[in-house]
Order: sequence, then C-alpha cells, then structure tokens
Amino acid sequence: MAKFLTNREENYSQWYNDLVIKADLAETSAVRGCMIIKPYGYAIWEKIQAELDRLFKETGHVNAYFPLFIPKSFFSKEASHVEGFAKECAVVTHYRLKNDENGKGIVVDPAAKLEEELIVRPTSETIIWHSYKNWIQSYRDLPILINQWANVVRWEMRTRLFLRTTEFLWQEGHTAHATREEAIEEAQKMINVYAGFAENSMAVPVIKGHKSENERFAGALDTYAIEALMQDGKALQAGTSHFLGQNFAKAFDVQFTDRTGKLDYVWATSWGVSTRLMGAIIMAHADNNGLVLPPKLAPIQVVIIPIFKNEEQLAAISEKALKIKADLQAFGISVKYDDRDNNKPGWKFADYELKGVPVRLAIGPRDLENNTIEIARRDTLTKETISMDKLTEHIPALLDAIQVNIYNKAANFRKENTHYIDSWQEFLGILDGPGGFIMAHWDGTKETEEKIKEETKATIRCIPFDSPEEDGKCIYSGLPSKRRVLFARSY
Amino acid sequence: MAKFLTNREENYSQWYNDLVIKADLAETSAVRGCMIIKPYGYAIWEKIQAELDRLFKETGHVNAYFPLFIPKSFFSKEASHVEGFAKECAVVTHYRLKNDENGKGIVVDPAAKLEEELIVRPTSETIIWHSYKNWIQSYRDLPILINQWANVVRWEMRTRLFLRTTEFLWQEGHTAHATREEAIEEAQKMINVYAGFAENSMAVPVIKGHKSENERFAGALDTYAIEALMQDGKALQAGTSHFLGQNFAKAFDVQFTDRTGKLDYVWATSWGVSTRLMGAIIMAHADNNGLVLPPKLAPIQVVIIPIFKNEEQLAAISEKALKIKADLQAFGISVKYDDRDNNKPGWKFADYELKGVPVRLAIGPRDLENNTIEIARRDTLTKETISMDKLTEHIPALLDAIQVNIYNKAANFRKENTHYIDSWQEFLGILDGPGGFIMAHWDGTKETEEKIKEETKATIRCIPFDSPEEDGKCIYSGLPSKRRVLFARSY
Repeated sequence: MAKFLTNREENYSQWYNDLVIKADLAETSAVRGCMIIKPYGYAIWEKIQAELDRLFKETGHVNAYFPLFIPKSFFSKEASHVEGFAKECAVVTHYRLKNDENGKGIVVDPAAKLEEELIVRPTSETIIWHSYKNWIQSYRDLPILINQWANVVRWEMRTRLFLRTTEFLWQEGHTAHATREEAIEEAQKMINVYAGFAENSMAVPVIKGHKSENERFAGALDTYAIEALMQDGKALQAGTSHFLGQNFAKAFDVQFTDRTGKLDYVWATSWGVSTRLMGAIIMAHADNNGLVLPPKLAPIQVVIIPIFKNEEQLAAISEKALKIKADLQAFGISVKYDDRDNNKPGWKFADYELKGVPVRLAIGPRDLENNTIEIARRDTLTKETISMDKLTEHIPALLDAIQVNIYNKAANFRKENTHYIDSWQEFLGILDGPGGFIMAHWDGTKETEEKIKEETKATIRCIPFDSPEEDGKCIYSGLPSKRRVLFARSY
Repeated sequence: MAKFLTNREENYSQWYNDLVIKADLAETSAVRGCMIIKPYGYAIWEKIQAELDRLFKETGHVNAYFPLFIPKSFFSKEASHVEGFAKECAVVTHYRLKNDENGKGIVVDPAAKLEEELIVRPTSETIIWHSYKNWIQSYRDLPILINQWANVVRWEMRTRLFLRTTEFLWQEGHTAHATREEAIEEAQKMINVYAGFAENSMAVPVIKGHKSENERFAGALDTYAIEALMQDGKALQAGTSHFLGQNFAKAFDVQFTDRTGKLDYVWATSWGVSTRLMGAIIMAHADNNGLVLPPKLAPIQVVIIPIFKNEEQLAAISEKALKIKADLQAFGISVKYDDRDNNKPGWKFADYELKGVPVRLAIGPRDLENNTIEIARRDTLTKETISMDKLTEHIPALLDAIQVNIYNKAANFRKENTHYIDSWQEFLGILDGPGGFIMAHWDGTKETEEKIKEETKATIRCIPFDSPEEDGKCIYSGLPSKRRVLFARSY
C-alpha cells in the first residue's frame, strides 16, 4: 500500500492528500468543498470528541443545540462580526421544490421564497446570544457554560480535506459571565484545555498565545490560540478561545442585574476546535509509510495478524490470538484480530502501517511452538520477539511509551525548527529555506504585520503567553519591541 | 412549579408544550420551526445517543459523516423518492453576502448564484448511494454497515417541539448488501434494535410491524415501524427501518461482482430515529406534576436535598450528603446534591418533580440524629424513610424497580386502550370516544385506507408482525380480510 503514497519529501501536499485518501480517512464529495468522513477517519474523530467532551464536562460545561440556520439580519447586529464572517456563507432563499412543468426533473418553486434569507451557520454567536437574552435576567442566571457539537459551513474557495472544507464538524463553546475577569479566566481556561488535549491526547506540542489584533476573531477583544508546527515547517492553528467582552451582549441587548442591583451587559467567551485537528494529527506524525496515530486516539491500538499456511495452523493461531485479544481488551485496549484469508500477511502489515495502528502483533506456527510473539512498533518501525507470557503486561506500557515517544519526536522537531532571529535577512532566509517557527521582534503595529504578510506570506501566529520581556528591534521596521512573537507560514 | 402546568386532562396539547418549556427541555427559536434543545433536554438526548450508538456498534455498524448539502439533481434520480421527499426542503441558491450599497446592512450577492442549487439534506440516501458507487466493486466490499449522526431539515408547515420540527437531530443507518435476504434481515434486525431500545431504555412498549404501501418510505419496498401509544390515545411512530431493494443502487448505478462473477445491483436498507423520541418519552410517562423520566435515560437519577435552618445544620448535612453522593456514584448512578440556599426545599421538590428526576432524597437535622433518610419516588409520588445504612444497596434496586414500573404502567395503559373491533360504528365510537389503538380488519386496498383516513383522520399505523391470521371482514368495505391491522390517529 505504502508504495502508492507520494514521497513526503518530494511533494508534501500530494503526500498529505494521498494519505488521507489511502488510509481511508476521508474523501471529496459531489458537493464542492464538502468532504465525506469515512468510518476509519470518523472513528478517530469520535475519540477526539469523547475526550474533549469529558474535559468540557469536567470543567463544568453542558451541551445544548441551537438552530442550523441564522436569520440574515442577525449578522448585521455586531459590526465587526459581520465584516469578518457574514460574507462567504451558504444562503437559503427558498423552502420548496416542485416538478418542472416541462417534465425536466425538479425546479425551485419561485412561490416558496423566504421573506428573510437564512444563513447556514458559519459560527453561532449571533443565534445563541439572541437566545441568551431570554435566559439571563440576574447574576443568579450566570454563568452559562454551554458547548455545542455541530456542523458549520463557510464557503471556502480553496479547500483541502480536514484542513479547510466548506462544511466541517466542530464544537463551539459559548459562555456568559457576570464579570470581565470571570470571562477572561474562562477563555484562558479553555485554551489550556485545548493545549492539554493537543499535547496529552494528540501528542502534538503547541504554543499558546494571543492573536494579534489583525488575526483576532471577528467581534473578539482578545483571541487566544494554540499553534502547532507541521513537518513541512508550516504552522497549523489547532484551536482558538475568544474573550468577546460585552460586544455580543450589546448587539443583542443582553443585560443582567448584578449583586448590587445594577444593570450591566453580560460578558462573553466562545471557543472551538474542529475536524481540522485531524489534519494536525496526520501532519504532525505521519511518515512515508503512512499514518502514525497516537495510541490515545487510535481506533485500533493493537492489531494481531496470523501467519499461516493452512487451515489447521490458522485454527491453532486463532485460539491463541483470541485469548490475547480478550486479555488486552480487559485492560481497555482496542484490539483487532485480522484473520481474513484474502490478503497475505505482508499486505496486511503494510495496510496497518498505512493506517497508523500503533502496535502490530504477528503469530506464526513457530511462535506457538516457542511460546513467543512478534511485536512491531509503528512509531519506530522496530520489531522484537518476546515471550507470550509477558505480553499482557508489556502492551499497556508499550502504548504509553509510544504516546510519549511520538510527542517527544514532535517536540524535538519543533525545537530544531524554531528559529530565534534578529534580522530581516535571516527572516527571509528561514522562510525560503527550512521554514519552521520564527521567534522575532515586532513593533506591534498592524501596518508592519500586513507588510510582512504581503512580502513573505508569513503571519504572526501568536504572541506567546510565555514570551519573556526583552528589549529588541522589530525585524521589519527597526522600531523598538518588548518581546518576540511567533511568525510562520501557516495552513 | 407544577402549578404553572396546564392540566393534562383539560388541554393535552398545551400541557405538552408547557412541560417541554417549563422542564427546560427545549424552546422555539428565531427561525421558524427550528428548536433550541436546552441543556437538560440535550442531556437526555445524549443518553439516548450513547445507548443507541452502543447497540449499533454491538450489531457491527460503524459511524461516518456525509455532506449536509445534496445537489438538486440527485433527488430526481430515484423516481418515487423525489415524489416523497424532494418538495418541502431548504434550498441553498447563493454562497455569498455583501454590504448593501445603500448602507442598509447586508444583502445576498446576486453574482454568487450557484449553478446548481443545493438542498439541505432531508435524508441522505441519495448522497450516500452516490458515494457507495465508488466504494463497491465486489462482494468482498459488502456488507457496508454505516450509521450517521446528523441534523436534517424538512420544511414543515405545522411544527411542535421535538415531535415535528423543521430541523431535527437523528441518526440514519445506510447499509449495502450482496443479497436480498441479507438486506431484509438487516432491516428487521434494526427495527428490533429500536424496539428493544424503546422498551428497555425508554420504558415505552411498542408494536412492530410493516407500514402499508401508502405509508412506506419514498423509495422503499418495505418499511418496518415501531408504534407507541401516547396518553391521549394517539399513536406516535418512534422509528422506522426500510428495505430499499435495489432502488437506490439502480438510481445511482451501484453494481458489484458476486461470488460467481456475475454483475448485480446492490441491496440496501436505511433506518432512523430522531429527537422525536424525546416527545415519546415525555408523552408516554409524564403527569400533571411534570416529567417522569425512565431511570436509564435520566441525566440526574438521584437528587439529594438538604433541609436546614442555618449554616451549621447545612454543614452537617452536606458532609453526610456528599458521602452518599460518592457512594452512589461508585455504583454508576448520577447524583446531584442541591445545596443552593436561594430556594426553599418545597420549591426544589416541585422543581425536580417537574424535571422528572426518578429518586429524591431529603436529609434534615432529625435524619442525622436518627441515621435515617427520606426517599421519594417520582413515578408513584410515594415517600418512605429508611435507615441511612441501607441506602446504597437500596437505590440501585429502586431505580430498576422504577424503570420496570413505568414500563408496566405504560403497557397496562396500552392494553386498556387497545380495542379489537369489528364494525365501522365501533370504529367511529372509539375514535370519537376514548381513542387508542384499534385492531381491525382491512381489505388491503389503498382506496379503503385513504377513505378511512379522509373520513376519520385515523391511519394504518402498521400491520403488526405478530398479528395472527384470522378470517374477517374489512370494517369499511366489508370485503374479506386475513388479519387485523393497527389503526389510530397519530402524531
């Protein structure tokens, strides 16, 4: 299978597309820009959802569901939101089809035109804050800590599976608070939840920071982001959390009586991650043999493959293999025993490598004689043969070790590809050369940021929370700067 | 709280609406016919989803995700499907908005008109079978056993929260098989899964049967349904499973090579249940005090309420209550301890009754002295005081007993309200009187079915699988009939 993958070093972009298709994660559909998430890809997404949902609930959030459609007029209510969001959207104008009078299939019924057009949600702040108006009267009604799992649509011109699609799946948290401080605390809490998930579950190290004003969410006073480095030296924004101030409360007139009896507008946050995380997992770890899935998100953590020449051998191996499967499942490990007889073991080995299954066990007749089993690691592509008796205690530790190893590998890659530079020449040299994260001084102005983007396509990914204060000069303008910011070209 | 509910016996429809709103399950939105599912309602839906998903996976299914939008032309491909489905749909005609030139907010950009309109999926057979064409070549690619959790849109003129909404949440299974027999077996298996879920988890007894030809899904050769009886004597269709024959395979040209090398069209099923199940749970069990939730789907199974006059008493009670909460949680029971001091115990009692929490525990200072606790059952509204020491063994059994009791209550209600009748006069008498399920003979013709519907608004809910063969005469036409079918007015 792997031989069908384009070489990552030759054409990264084609390698990525090949991988998504051949590992059976997703494919394009008949609808421009909309993807089909296939069962193997969706199984990873389900693991992502389950863990994030657990983390959201652990931090006091509940789920709810708001309408897919938003009245067009809602978008005009928050001035900066309309500028940032309301343009490239799917617009519903009619609610009925009818048979064509000339017998040419079906046509839109012109009599069924909506009075006000409906927008398929690109994000739900407006419809949700319109509802919160009725839910909030007093400080006793606060905080509201709601999350929604949903599909959203943004009419993207250039799409790529998982990374940028017209329709995508995501979660969007929308919280309401009595004070500015509490809302900021919430927005920061959630970017930390995302960062913890990326690092612990996805094994992808991320840098947390503020977005620059230019890159902020439309309607936010502050946007926090987590940024991950992909293997081609480009950054991928993996999640954002927004402190929205009182902007949406003012737009939708959501006021509450505080503890002192005074009327005030409600403070808001919103935060989201999407099926884009799938792209991050793929691009952070995969190699020329295929996916390398972090054990914590792998739908199949261990695959067992029998090596046999006849039915009798298969029967003997199967007995042992099913016992091992049951033993491992008792540890909460997901195991597949692949005893299909229509493919050779070598084909299966390559296929599960392509699919990124963390651990592969192979059992042949000689293993049965010797009470041994062959273990192959997907991350290192190494093999060892151990005693069957030690298997069930070995595997859980091995899965943990793989999880740590691929995190470390990604962290080392990031370390090697993060450049602290102080001149424009160096900046251009990195971008034209190896790429990667660039930590450099910036004068803090929109104008400089825009010029750098125009000239290099690199943007300020974030102003890292942990970027220390230090005196420096902006690499572009030479004006004074107080801290380095993170630049990169990005997805 | 309950005093705000309309009396069920006075105005059933208003009682239902009041209940959905006041128990905080859902509300109408700014978009006509689209509901907002509030956190408490969504928590029940999450429990429904989790258990159904487990059942689907246990029966070999996997999840995937297909696009929200369907090209208009797809609907014309399956002739009977277009008749049944393609009409009342949300139609996307444009993909961009722009600022109005006269400064009047935003308008649809006429330059961004789609070449082919997109329909927001009312169901996904067409887009899925268009994809299956590329997935299926040989019998080795079969069966495909896919389910999708999704939102769908059907432009309903008259909507009611959960029962009939323009947008609703559901799951839709779409399977592909090599033989007719296997597809029929699958469709039957899934109606049995639904029936098992309704009876075991929802505590709602259902009748399984075939839909008459008139009531079949558009494009199906056979539709199986489960029908439940609500407390107002009307039927509610709670789930359907369709044997689609080769109709969609032919419409989308999906052929496969069978074991003998012969080319044939693929056999299909589809099956779905939706947020409508919420309506069934509400209407099957609730009373004039509010919801009565089956313990297996209750987001809060046990609520603990402290009875206290001062902080000192509350502290002593809380210590005990939190211990009980932890003990019960260790049994996998979801427990809420409500120590809010802004509402009196009586208010809380009424509120949790309204919300249908199966078991309420109350602890006061005297209970601490006597080592006792008061237990109230939501289903029977009875109370007893028991020793604290027996609590943790008592509660799991009590929850089981409540689950059984509300099932039995609903089953008895159905038994009392199922009428075996043999004349048109009796038929009219039941419909104008008590309502309920009517088991009666029918001549098997469309014409009779339609006339009965016209004259009485009653329809054939299903031809029960277990309806025994017996000679009789159609209640309407007097023509011979071989078995009774199930009639009712329905939601």
